Amino acid sequence: MPTTNKQTLSWDSLWTNVHLATLADGDSYGEIPDAAIAVRDGRIAWLGPRAELPAGHDSKVEYDGAGCWLTPGLVDCHTHIVYAGNRSAEFEARLNGASYEDIARSGGGIMSTVRATRAATEQALYDASVPRVRALLAEGVTTLEIKSGYGLDFATEAKMLRVARRIGVDLPVHVSTTFLGAHALPPEYADAPERYLDSVCDQMLPALAAEGLVDAVDAFCEKIGFSAAQTERVFQAAQRHGLPVKLHAEQLSDQGGAALTARYRGLSADHLEYLSQSGIDAMAEAGTVAVLLPGAFYFLRETMLPPLAALRTARVPIALSTDCNPGTSPMTSLLLVMNMACTLFRMTPLEALAGVTNNAAAALGLQHEIGSLAVGKRADFALWAIDRPGDLAYGIGGNPCRWVVNAGRRRGRDAIAADRQSGA
Amino acid sequence: MPTTNKQTLSWDSLWTNVHLATLADGDSYGEIPDAAIAVRDGRIAWLGPRAELPAGHDSKVEYDGAGCWLTPGLVDCHTHIVYAGNRSAEFEARLNGASYEDIARSGGGIMSTVRATRAATEQALYDASVPRVRALLAEGVTTLEIKSGYGLDFATEAKMLRVARRIGVDLPVHVSTTFLGAHALPPEYADAPERYLDSVCDQMLPALAAEGLVDAVDAFCEKIGFSAAQTERVFQAAQRHGLPVKLHAEQLSDQGGAALTARYRGLSADHLEYLSQSGIDAMAEAGTVAVLLPGAFYFLRETMLPPLAALRTARVPIALSTDCNPGTSPMTSLLLVMNMACTLFRMTPLEALAGVTNNAAAALGLQHEIGSLAVGKRADFALWAIDRPGDLAYGIGGNPCRWVVNAGRRRGRDAIAADRQSGA
Ligand SMILES: [Zn+2]
Ligand SMILES: [Zn+2]
Repeated sequence: MPTTNKQTLSWDSLWTNVHLATLADGDSYGEIPDAAIAVRDGRIAWLGPRAELPAGHDSKVEYDGAGCWLTPGLVDCHTHIVYAGNRSAEFEARLNGASYEDIARSGGGIMSTVRATRAATEQALYDASVPRVRALLAEGVTTLEIKSGYGLDFATEAKMLRVARRIGVDLPVHVSTTFLGAHALPPEYADAPERYLDSVCDQMLPALAAEGLVDAVDAFCEKIGFSAAQTERVFQAAQRHGLPVKLHAEQLSDQGGAALTARYRGLSADHLEYLSQSGIDAMAEAGTVAVLLPGAFYFLRETMLPPLAALRTARVPIALSTDCNPGTSPMTSLLLVMNMACTLFRMTPLEALAGVTNNAAAALGLQHEIGSLAVGKRADFALWAIDRPGDLAYGIGGNPCRWVVNAGRRRGRDAIAADRQSGA
Repeated sequence: MPTTNKQTLSWDSLWTNVHLATLADGDSYGEIPDAAIAVRDGRIAWLGPRAELPAGHDSKVEYDGAGCWLTPGLVDCHTHIVYAGNRSAEFEARLNGASYEDIARSGGGIMSTVRATRAATEQALYDASVPRVRALLAEGVTTLEIKSGYGLDFATEAKMLRVARRIGVDLPVHVSTTFLGAHALPPEYADAPERYLDSVCDQMLPALAAEGLVDAVDAFCEKIGFSAAQTERVFQAAQRHGLPVKLHAEQLSDQGGAALTARYRGLSADHLEYLSQSGIDAMAEAGTVAVLLPGAFYFLRETMLPPLAALRTARVPIALSTDCNPGTSPMTSLLLVMNMACTLFRMTPLEALAGVTNNAAAALGLQHEIGSLAVGKRADFALWAIDRPGDLAYGIGGNPCRWVVNAGRRRGRDAIAADRQSGA
């Protein structure tokens, strides 16, 4: 009886007086009322109804969960959260009647973020980014994807990814890095996209990968970005380095990006408002996750909805993310993403919660490690002062998170948020 | 020279190292960079550029504002924040395909909130409401309107208003109460609306007003609510008691409610998606504030926009509010309201900030007391770790508030939020 040997029952910590939403199967919250969950060596060692706690268990510390609901730690699987500069003036100018051309003429748009990010020291970039990360963590996020893509030169892309790694060391969050050199065409290569991609594929990626800065590779496949053929060059380079791929696909038009991503067994295709049925079929076959980004949909006042019904029918896993970025989704709340997914996309609260746990973990290739509550998985979870799991998607703008546990270590929400302020 | 006499320069507290957005005129942020602001007896005693601090001033305590922007405390001028029960299951059922009829049959809708609110003890109602209020206060709210309207009988309406008053005593916020007996028809009067209005006008209102529980009177004027003629009965009763009126008007159809409100010199007409030009003209003439509620617009997926351009042309003051309520706007973030006003209604960040300060104060008849930074006004303000005032409307889901000052008393944001949790 392995579950009763002494080592198995000698725990580092035990939470009781909690209700679990395990998200352990795809089709329900996996509710276990009046439960307990035990941690050993940063992993879940036991969970179940409190009444079934095994005799002879022993824990160094026992926490009272105060009747909270306990879910897997949230996973934000698509962010551009590391950047410098501030584009609120551009937002304001547009609302005061400036055209996109006016903005571009006065130096706005993505290139203003590129300029500011290039100009920032690594420390300044870190200081600018940490308050945004803390806002996410205070809402129960325990794993965070961070993309490069505001450098568009080797030094700045490296700087962004080093900051991302350092955030994962300094803050209570696991960080997955993504190299997004093919985010936009830098001014130095204005009329030479293929030469820029030479640099992305043959210089930047090999050097960044060698430094251990790259967990996955992404590109922006769009009329105003890179073509499918250009994207494929990036994917081939990733393949040469044994790195998984993902793609900004079908956000503004159907470029066949999702199908291309599926052909490379990509982790995820993201945005997807203009995704076709053949793209869906390819994703389903390849196990590529659909990452929907309702914050960008909302902020851009998009009216084309992603094809939810067809994604469900094809059983493509659907994840949700903030897409935190200064131009199209200046958003630092994954709970609000859940509500927007329900309100704007008519997803269910269960789909929304699975979208920021299990399916978001799959979008990072981490579904065997995190995203649900199960023995052996990393002890990443969040405790919520709510009546039922559906409350997480229902509320707008509140934060019922009370504690966050990352690899077994407990922190109060306010402690996580405490250092959020950068110098104003 | 009264500004240099000794008493004027003897202050209780002084903030320096701040930038002010005074909102003191209607058409700008009223920015004063590198400023100072002094408090005496809970009121603003001095403000201006730090370099112009008068010689001989003396302050019991001096605070370093850490380079924050300091704005008037935010005013949430339309809420139903005191209620019991939880309607997230109804939200979830609808997204899982239940029809409105299914929901009604299973006891959902507004009447489920009425039942829960009637059944709750005063203490339970208070405990359920305080965490929502704390969420608002942590974002810099210093004045809050709270409506009754989930009792629809004397005892429960009184209980709601007493809880509202107690919130204003226990928490660092000024509360304005509104009697909304004419919110819906209670089941006891299902076929007798006029008899219910007899009770509202002749029994409830006089008794509640005599107890000092009513600062203003409101009604829900709509096809599914009360007619304009029925609303006028309520307004006449308010007038008999010398109480100002306001109205839920033109949310789903044009009932002429705004013009009716203007005829009674009402404080505000609220919602207004279906407001006509004649309604606008009447409001402009009467000085009635337009209170827009983008959270309800968003949550209900309304597509009819309120007539912003015509309101601007007529110079009707525009306020914004959460409409916090469990059925159509389960929202506890006034910052998010500001972003939604910009994103969904194309208001400017300046209009959004004026909408939750100066104009929201006017919607409560308090524009001479609060809503802008000026000598003599109550020392209600919030300090923000932001680069510029426009940041407040630009960010989605973050909270850059660092300190809140209510009638001169300073509190850190986390201290305000600290007791937010009710028993889960
Ligand atoms: Zn993106
Ligand atoms: Zn209302």
